[in-house]
Amino acid sequence: MTVSHRVEPQIVTTLDGAIAVLRSRGLRLSSTRRLMLEALLAAEGPVSAERVASRLNLDAASVHRNLETLERHGLVRHVHLGHGPGLYALLAGGEREYLYCDGCGAARAVPTKELDPLRRRIRERYGFEARFDHFPIVGLCSACAAAGGEERGRELAGPAAG
Amino acid sequence: MTVSHRVEPQIVTTLDGAIAVLRSRGLRLSSTRRLMLEALLAAEGPVSAERVASRLNLDAASVHRNLETLERHGLVRHVHLGHGPGLYALLAGGEREYLYCDGCGAARAVPTKELDPLRRRIRERYGFEARFDHFPIVGLCSACAAAGGEERGRELAGPAAG
Repeated sequence: MTVSHRVEPQIVTTLDGAIAVLRSRGLRLSSTRRLMLEALLAAEGPVSAERVASRLNLDAASVHRNLETLERHGLVRHVHLGHGPGLYALLAGGEREYLYCDGCGAARAVPTKELDPLRRRIRERYGFEARFDHFPIVGLCSACAAAGGEERGRELAGPAAG
Repeated sequence: MTVSHRVEPQIVTTLDGAIAVLRSRGLRLSSTRRLMLEALLAAEGPVSAERVASRLNLDAASVHRNLETLERHGLVRHVHLGHGPGLYALLAGGEREYLYCDGCGAARAVPTKELDPLRRRIRERYGFEARFDHFPIVGLCSACAAAGGEERGRELAGPAAG
């Protein structure tokens, strides 16, 4: 089940902040939810429900359900990087969009406002409101483009410095 | 199995053209392949392997295998529109990229060269070679953006006139 991305985002950077949002929305703070929030805060980037479940030794179906609840309340978002399952992240660093390399699987997160000029161009030309948070810009990173896209690997780089 | 999009495209607009490419690549023209090529030539836009199989009353696994063979030889490409399965199309009208509405499921095909200025901008800013043929630009069409993205439906529009 995909939750709409038009839910108002809740930017949280600490466990206390996340718990405060949960409570303000009338949601129960179960031990599963607390563990999941800690794991998401510690994650380097978007992670799959399966990875969260296996790392915490929790039931995958329960983790899925809880991620959907958190997403419905704006605490969490998921992104589809290539062919894999949806990957989840808190909105700790603000809203992010992604560039995903179809060659090596590297994902680069960029702050949403950085892509606004691109979005404006697409809006003017096609009357289309592009968003790269749920489905990223896909293509080849510079290394894969230079090498013909043959590299394999997987990493998540943070937002660009400039 | 995903076939690389870096295979040289074979632009064909007729059954005879497609058969000529098959033969030039040393591929057999089975009755399944002939039926599939006819169906793809008649399709309005990208279609799933399941839809091709059910329309032609063919085995789905065989259709999948043959689509992959055709893709490996540059006759066919697949695109991932949203959460659904890969959708296949011949390169009859030349290379296409897509804008996909996450609200109503409408896809708009545009000739690749139209998106070159956008691609240049992304290359200059991120050193990233964006391609929107395998994974489209996703967002909201003007109707869904105006309505808050609540519409449902599915259609495929042709390339923009201008």
